[in-house]
Amino acid sequence: MLNQQYKECIQACLECMEACNVCYSACLKEEDVAMMSYCIRLDKECADICGFTAKAMQSNSPFAEQICKLCAEICEACGKECEKHDQEHCKKCAESCFRCAEECRKMAS
Amino acid sequence: MLNQQYKECIQACLECMEACNVCYSACLKEEDVAMMSYCIRLDKECADICGFTAKAMQSNSPFAEQICKLCAEICEACGKECEKHDQEHCKKCAESCFRCAEECRKMAS
Amino acid sequence: MLNQQYKECIQACLECMEACNVCYSACLKEEDVAMMSYCIRLDKECADICGFTAKAMQSNSPFAEQICKLCAEICEACGKECEKHDQEHCKKCAESCFRCAEECRKMAS
Amino acid sequence: MLNQQYKECIQACLECMEACNVCYSACLKEEDVAMMSYCIRLDKECADICGFTAKAMQSNSPFAEQICKLCAEICEACGKECEKHDQEHCKKCAESCFRCAEECRKMAS
Repeated sequence: MLNQQYKECIQACLECMEACNVCYSACLKEEDVAMMSYCIRLDKECADICGFTAKAMQSNSPFAEQICKLCAEICEACGKECEKHDQEHCKKCAESCFRCAEECRKMAS
Repeated sequence: MLNQQYKECIQACLECMEACNVCYSACLKEEDVAMMSYCIRLDKECADICGFTAKAMQSNSPFAEQICKLCAEICEACGKECEKHDQEHCKKCAESCFRCAEECRKMAS
Repeated sequence: MLNQQYKECIQACLECMEACNVCYSACLKEEDVAMMSYCIRLDKECADICGFTAKAMQSNSPFAEQICKLCAEICEACGKECEKHDQEHCKKCAESCFRCAEECRKMAS
Repeated sequence: MLNQQYKECIQACLECMEACNVCYSACLKEEDVAMMSYCIRLDKECADICGFTAKAMQSNSPFAEQICKLCAEICEACGKECEKHDQEHCKKCAESCFRCAEECRKMAS
């Protein structure tokens, strides 16, 4: 059975993974790609760690807390980069990142 | 923006990923682990390809269809193995696998 | 023990994963990022499937052949995109992609 | 170009990923699977974080150091579990884990 204490954090990770993958793809299609290059990099990094973290919680990894701690850090950085940009996908992504960072910090503590 | 045609298939992949990771972890704790060894293997394989496939659709991969096709095949095999076992986590996992296989086949065709 | 028939293909996948990740990162730092945007996308996709494919062979996945087939297709596409560009990292990446595609096709057949 | 300071650590991660995936697969075929269940779990976890860490270094992730720190911790735990068992694949895996843990600690500091 899914460990219920993880439920909200897993949900936040999966939503953040989606927002980051969507933002990554949208940034690659922006006219001024150069301006988005750090956003592209962090989106991909953040999407990947969110997927990794969800998997860790879903499978009761003995390292779930440490993985959540790292995930919170990457989400925080990605959110800070995304909120600098005006695009809708970046705004939405920043929100998901900050929410996920918060849920992950709760799990990690 | 998320490609809306992918929405249900992504959801099915994420649910299947969760069911497989939960089943994987539960199988490893079963008394008769030996009987579950092929289930453990397929659960992990299926969880991983489901995560991979969700990511592909979320980021508009030009290979999303081929990846869905592969995912359908692995989900089908995992579902068939899981449904052989009486455990609740296996029954639930089999269901998620078959639903995901179906959604992935739709996307792939 | 590692299945020896997989040895060269695993090596090709790991080298291609590295070349693609290096190319991805270098493309994001190019002055004309826009020109590299499809290369960035395919590099990341190709790096990820190569890692996935290496893992499948290393762990004797029952789906190794199908995964190799998909990997060959993505490597081929990434190689074709990379060889359009003059950058050293793109040339090197294209070479690794074509070699990996060939090894994967051998495994898949 | 590949960041040369990462070269040995990437190599250690890729070797550890392989040893863990091989050990995972071999453990699932052992007669006494139950005895290997924690080894199976840690092998998979360790293989996955090693692949993740190699990717981070190859693509110049701004989080490479933190990821290496987490990888070192998981490798250490996996090595300690593997060295409890007499199987050849476990002994070999333990060695790769401890070497990778050491390289990752160097990168993280």
